Amino acid sequence: MQSFEINKADLLKIRTALDGDDAEILKVLEEYHASEIAILFERLNPDQRQKIINVLPADVASEIISEMDEEDHPEQILFNLHPEKRSEIIEELDYDDATDIISQLEVHEQQEVLEDLDQEDATNIRTLLTYEEDTAGGLMNSDVIKINVSLNKKDALDEVIRLSEEIEEFYTIYAVDDYDTLQGIVSLKDIIKARPETMVADLMKTDYVFVRADVDQEEVAKLISQYNLTSIPVVNDYLKLLGRITVDDIIDVLEAESTEDILKISGVSEDEELSGNWKDAVKSRLPWLVINLGTAFLAASVIRHFAGLEAKLPIIAAYMTIIAGMGGNAATQALAVTVRRISLNDLTDAQAYRTVLKEFTVGLINGAANGIIVLVVALWYDANPLLGLVLFLAMTGNLIVAGLTGATIPLVLKRVGIDPAVASSIIITTFTDCIGFLLPLWLASSLLL
Amino acid sequence: MQSFEINKADLLKIRTALDGDDAEILKVLEEYHASEIAILFERLNPDQRQKIINVLPADVASEIISEMDEEDHPEQILFNLHPEKRSEIIEELDYDDATDIISQLEVHEQQEVLEDLDQEDATNIRTLLTYEEDTAGGLMNSDVIKINVSLNKKDALDEVIRLSEEIEEFYTIYAVDDYDTLQGIVSLKDIIKARPETMVADLMKTDYVFVRADVDQEEVAKLISQYNLTSIPVVNDYLKLLGRITVDDIIDVLEAESTEDILKISGVSEDEELSGNWKDAVKSRLPWLVINLGTAFLAASVIRHFAGLEAKLPIIAAYMTIIAGMGGNAATQALAVTVRRISLNDLTDAQAYRTVLKEFTVGLINGAANGIIVLVVALWYDANPLLGLVLFLAMTGNLIVAGLTGATIPLVLKRVGIDPAVASSIIITTFTDCIGFLLPLWLASSLLL
Repeated sequence: MQSFEINKADLLKIRTALDGDDAEILKVLEEYHASEIAILFERLNPDQRQKIINVLPADVASEIISEMDEEDHPEQILFNLHPEKRSEIIEELDYDDATDIISQLEVHEQQEVLEDLDQEDATNIRTLLTYEEDTAGGLMNSDVIKINVSLNKKDALDEVIRLSEEIEEFYTIYAVDDYDTLQGIVSLKDIIKARPETMVADLMKTDYVFVRADVDQEEVAKLISQYNLTSIPVVNDYLKLLGRITVDDIIDVLEAESTEDILKISGVSEDEELSGNWKDAVKSRLPWLVINLGTAFLAASVIRHFAGLEAKLPIIAAYMTIIAGMGGNAATQALAVTVRRISLNDLTDAQAYRTVLKEFTVGLINGAANGIIVLVVALWYDANPLLGLVLFLAMTGNLIVAGLTGATIPLVLKRVGIDPAVASSIIITTFTDCIGFLLPLWLASSLLL
Repeated sequence: MQSFEINKADLLKIRTALDGDDAEILKVLEEYHASEIAILFERLNPDQRQKIINVLPADVASEIISEMDEEDHPEQILFNLHPEKRSEIIEELDYDDATDIISQLEVHEQQEVLEDLDQEDATNIRTLLTYEEDTAGGLMNSDVIKINVSLNKKDALDEVIRLSEEIEEFYTIYAVDDYDTLQGIVSLKDIIKARPETMVADLMKTDYVFVRADVDQEEVAKLISQYNLTSIPVVNDYLKLLGRITVDDIIDVLEAESTEDILKISGVSEDEELSGNWKDAVKSRLPWLVINLGTAFLAASVIRHFAGLEAKLPIIAAYMTIIAGMGGNAATQALAVTVRRISLNDLTDAQAYRTVLKEFTVGLINGAANGIIVLVVALWYDANPLLGLVLFLAMTGNLIVAGLTGATIPLVLKRVGIDPAVASSIIITTFTDCIGFLLPLWLASSLLL
């Protein structure tokens, strides 16, 4: 297998070369794939990265820059280059990648960069910069292979070959009219196989899926995955072809969406960069913790209410934390399964109902199973059968509550249009904490005193 | 935008048609895309699904079957068909999809299905059935466009066109020798542009990425995403070309991996099907809950140790649950960010060190912030400044522990080769519970009594 792993020898070689002159650096770098250099980049400091991009030819440099992580700030490396080299590299980049990188610069820096580009590139990138980053427009590449519907086979083939000089990889050829309005899609194979006099209009498929530029990227990902597409055309309100999104752009979207799901379900703001600094992390997490603290006071007020009981039965404090904690764990399980399910697929009413019923059953069984263990411990350790019964009932009850809320809350939030991953875990912990304290305390004060 | 949403009218129309004869069913179904019927399928019962597949022509039926969710059991629908119709549908399927579906049947059912197929298809599927489902071999499609390196441009083009009759979509053409050993990859574009006498060997690119059939699917996904590939060839130990994996197959792998991450971090076994029944859910979750119960007893023993204190200061029980709970929340935040980061990218030692340092800082700041709130509440509600100090220190301390363990535990588990998502949250909750109980109880008994 050809996967590239960084080893110390590679790193040492490159770091040593970086102390030498340009020729030495180039000679060492020649041994690596552009994507391998991109991986090595993670271990180098900004100065070393800049040096490498400075000496590499524009085509290799552009590939590395397009593969750099956003958080490693490729836009700064680009901006620091000599304007001529910079423009060369940008011209090698796909428009969508170039736009993503340039969009990270300050507006006056963007102007400076765009002014040095040739007219056509600058116009294309300026247009792409107007779309929101997380929409189809922000995701699309405006470089597409498009041919006029009225061309015959031979002219169409010539045109595709001409256009393909600039656009290396293409999945689909788009057929447009004189105003660039999308008319259909054609495959290169069908053009080759066609008889000379056949027109593009006769070869194209007219039932195809497309998106408008303002559609959310998550929706685009769902379409591509649902219809098993390799690419999807992007149009404006008048069906003018603006660009295309390919399935590999969608991989990044899907990974980002999954990361957001994991963060939100754990009470972290979805905007927190995984490798961000502590300031961002505090800003993203402190608000959730403070909300949690508020709900914790609520749960604690249940304990305050029974303060007299604890003086008489101090052992109950230890058990009640166990029951509340187990409720939290069981609720998290139910929540994770339900939230992820909703996030991959909308549920029908019948499916939602069955989900809640299932989580009730799971809560009952897991609650009773853990309840028996607690009962046995209470018998063996505290020799108190009635306490054992109280704990058994409380554990079962709380795990049923955990299952019910873990499934119901995200489903309800989804129905009323709130992202189920965001608020669910806080609401649910509040429930399982309150009920987890209330049940043992109330049952104990009713049955034991 | 052309996304398909199920509405009641569509469903009613189809359900009504299903009560009529075959012609009626067909007439209604003609209005829909195969992938739209696949979506409608989710709302129909198994009998209705079977009826639809029975009447549809094999090419449409095969598309629907290939898009059905594994949990809706397409293999049962296939198996229930008339053998002739069944074979027709299987012949329309890609080999990889056919294999995935057939692999779900019992072995004797597999035999029955394979016996009815034509020799070549049966052999291909039999071979694919021998690979583990989650390896490159299990993921690959053995239908590839491959041409001999010794062909000239014209013969190569003819061969590609001939092969493309059977293989609808192809991204890459593979060049092989007489023994099917992979020699390079060629693009259709380059063949078209080549001069008549040029040989495939002169057109092909020889630096390309490939995988062996036994490589794990997660590794394949990383390669495709790392090298921005649209497809990757799969070979055996002698570099014989066995098949190819395309980027759209990888989307499902990535979604499954993210689901596993979310489940594992929430204490659910990674094998639990999101829409599985309650029995599977109990089997998947109960073991984790029982382990959790064990650690909860450990934490509770801390409380038992200070049983005397609680009798004198009953209010401490309420506060200690707050501090332990907040520790759990903060640890979950640190854990989610760290686990997801590890899962997307391996961390260097320096990055791991910085991560731990960052989480320490975040824990300190968030701990002090929440500590001040608890201090104010203690002053205002219990008029006890020393208790306020105890709680401030305990909250700060526990959130530092939460940050440190939330970052350190997954990093350590990863280093020693244990999946960080699996065990982390249990270990961490144990820490934050024990410390969350110990700190306020110990500080209170030292400072207050």
